[in-house]
Amino acid sequence: MKTTISKVNEHLNEEVKMGAWLSNKRSSGKIAFLQLRDGTGFIQGVVVKAAVSEEVFNLAKSLTQESSVYVTGTIVEDTRSPFGYEMQVTDLELIHESVDFPITPKEHGTEFLMDHRHLWLRSKRQHAVMKIRNEIIRATYEFYNKEGFIKIDPPILTGSAAEGTTELFHTQYFDEEAYLSQSGQLYMEAAAMAFGKVFSFGPTFRAEKSKTRRHLIEFWMIEPEMAFMEHEESLQVQEQYVSYLAQSVVENCALELDILERDVDKLKQIQAPFPRITYDEAVELLKDKGFDDIEWGEDFGSPHETAIAESFDKPVFITHYPKDIKAFYMKPDPTNEAVVLCADLIAPEGYGEIIGGSQRIDDLDLMKQRYEEHNLSGDAYQWYLELRQYGSVPHAGFGLGLERTVAWFSGVEHVRETIPFPRLLNRLYP
Amino acid sequence: MKTTISKVNEHLNEEVKMGAWLSNKRSSGKIAFLQLRDGTGFIQGVVVKAAVSEEVFNLAKSLTQESSVYVTGTIVEDTRSPFGYEMQVTDLELIHESVDFPITPKEHGTEFLMDHRHLWLRSKRQHAVMKIRNEIIRATYEFYNKEGFIKIDPPILTGSAAEGTTELFHTQYFDEEAYLSQSGQLYMEAAAMAFGKVFSFGPTFRAEKSKTRRHLIEFWMIEPEMAFMEHEESLQVQEQYVSYLAQSVVENCALELDILERDVDKLKQIQAPFPRITYDEAVELLKDKGFDDIEWGEDFGSPHETAIAESFDKPVFITHYPKDIKAFYMKPDPTNEAVVLCADLIAPEGYGEIIGGSQRIDDLDLMKQRYEEHNLSGDAYQWYLELRQYGSVPHAGFGLGLERTVAWFSGVEHVRETIPFPRLLNRLYP
Ligand SMILES: [Mg+2]
Ligand SMILES: [Mg+2]
Repeated sequence: MKTTISKVNEHLNEEVKMGAWLSNKRSSGKIAFLQLRDGTGFIQGVVVKAAVSEEVFNLAKSLTQESSVYVTGTIVEDTRSPFGYEMQVTDLELIHESVDFPITPKEHGTEFLMDHRHLWLRSKRQHAVMKIRNEIIRATYEFYNKEGFIKIDPPILTGSAAEGTTELFHTQYFDEEAYLSQSGQLYMEAAAMAFGKVFSFGPTFRAEKSKTRRHLIEFWMIEPEMAFMEHEESLQVQEQYVSYLAQSVVENCALELDILERDVDKLKQIQAPFPRITYDEAVELLKDKGFDDIEWGEDFGSPHETAIAESFDKPVFITHYPKDIKAFYMKPDPTNEAVVLCADLIAPEGYGEIIGGSQRIDDLDLMKQRYEEHNLSGDAYQWYLELRQYGSVPHAGFGLGLERTVAWFSGVEHVRETIPFPRLLNRLYP
Repeated sequence: MKTTISKVNEHLNEEVKMGAWLSNKRSSGKIAFLQLRDGTGFIQGVVVKAAVSEEVFNLAKSLTQESSVYVTGTIVEDTRSPFGYEMQVTDLELIHESVDFPITPKEHGTEFLMDHRHLWLRSKRQHAVMKIRNEIIRATYEFYNKEGFIKIDPPILTGSAAEGTTELFHTQYFDEEAYLSQSGQLYMEAAAMAFGKVFSFGPTFRAEKSKTRRHLIEFWMIEPEMAFMEHEESLQVQEQYVSYLAQSVVENCALELDILERDVDKLKQIQAPFPRITYDEAVELLKDKGFDDIEWGEDFGSPHETAIAESFDKPVFITHYPKDIKAFYMKPDPTNEAVVLCADLIAPEGYGEIIGGSQRIDDLDLMKQRYEEHNLSGDAYQWYLELRQYGSVPHAGFGLGLERTVAWFSGVEHVRETIPFPRLLNRLYP
């Protein structure tokens, strides 16, 4: 019976066959313990000299790291391992011998590992992080499908750039100049007017010369946009979504969280509703905490966000930022025109901003005024203006950064481990 | 009770309120029929003069196309419409008046509609196509999750290009030159060695100066890759996947297929297994059909594919193409080294190639030989070669083009209608 490690629980006390790689090994004169992986999981294979042919035992003893094999054996329970099963090997067949696999069980430097990302992904820890990423992706589609959202793919190549072109990648698009999208939001607003509730999920690009543990050059975003929806209702969607992701990971990635030694109680706490404080309150809070480097009207940096988040054991919404430090399309608060109906969601434990969102300007005249203030009045943004011209409605939306969310849930320090092939300043390989 | 058109079946004979736009209207002195849409669907609202206030009736009569309203009324069954329900309007509240909406119910030229794509998406037909696209996306995730595949996102920005750079978009990546990915496949092979069965789903880019009904500059692909898998097994995954998509659309998009006047019986026929013919047999078939412009060793064009497809009422796999017209990484057939273990899946009804796939070369020496033949021996592809060096295994994969599949299932002529904001030669707006 051919199977995979992820399905051995269906074959208890049966003999099965599978393809696998050797990730590690211990052996003595009479027994060999093979740490096997097949991509779906990790299992220990026990080869007892007395139970197999001499060829098989010799092969087991000489097997090198990352050699590929077909392995046959009986699945038994193993209460000592978190996985719960092991394999009593009866046959072993070499597919390909791996010589001098570069990533040995010893410690390696980050740059070395990053240069070997195509092989590093095979390690237990990287495997666990990618499984959590996969679960967040799966749960995202499940959540938005259940809630009646339509997936809309905004274009990556655009002829116009709403918020300055210095941090954008340029390319020649036949006779025109094009940019790689930093956000599909403007397009998602058009889509919300056609489909009501929509979400995007795709790559975005930021040619930013910053080298922090929270920044990638190429990263994935989920951007929902909802017609007939105001600020407060959008916050509710956001907290329900993030809670759904967290609880899906808790439920479906127990083994991976264990491998990563993640404090699962911290994830279980991520349940809607989340606390909300205004920007004004956040500034006061920071001053109370002794920060003297922030004045009303200035944006928060990572240390500020971390300090604010420390006051809460759930993610916290910071709402109503000053209009001048936020995007041109955000709707002013009708009760205070100096601030906008927006929120950033800050994760606990120093993981920073996970979501940015707002209600959008729906008034045509106000949007025209913003166009003048931001020099958008050419042809390139005509279509976006028209959304306010033909049946404008209250609408709101937000963007969640996938990699920061993976880092948070996985408890990994740096976002470079949260995407299969990270793109960083000076890192375009592999 | 606030609701959406998609949920009116839960509110039969109840009074509900919803936000909506007016898509069309007929009225006489005593009654107005409002064609309403809210993004989730379309419903007729009936406003009877005697049943509402004078203000409401006057508003209904004067309402312009694409004006936005909050509409209140009772949901009743309507056996004459395919949707099955209509609304007896009791109240109507204007949100925003739309003046001179550019896309009127009359005919418009394609370029005009494409220039107004942000508004054209609101039309019934475009709405139906995007719902089918959404269903294909949803069913893709469902299928691969069920089958134990992990979603892996290969990078979009790459420093190397495997198959010539003339059809690639270039960009400056800080101090290096980068390309926009045409396919994530090479990376997916690395991922398959780490995760067993993986799939990608993301945008790809082709700077091709071709202007056909099957080509987009920016399009979305699904690229599964599977370790410990050979050619024939991969074909089985492909036919099961495509059947799953077709049956999901038949089951969940009845209304949309009706709007598009799609022959649903043709879609119901898309059930695994699919017929397979070899390239050799396909050449013979074409000669029998009178084609004198094809010789063994040449690739098929659209007319050839269409003619081959006409001999079958299901999609057909064409297998074992000559090695010289296929990609460098395809595994030669051990019984005939002139051909490779590959297949293209050709859709019926002239929709062309939907999938291309193959078993990959797993022998290090043969791959080194291919590197020399294709001048890949620099540093850029070192990582890909290493996949054959450290525990190489038989593996196979394929790529499905999303937009061509949407076109096929929807029965639309041109792929430009199958993506929200198409990128074409000379089309970067909106
Ligand atoms: Mg911020
Ligand atoms: Mg072809």
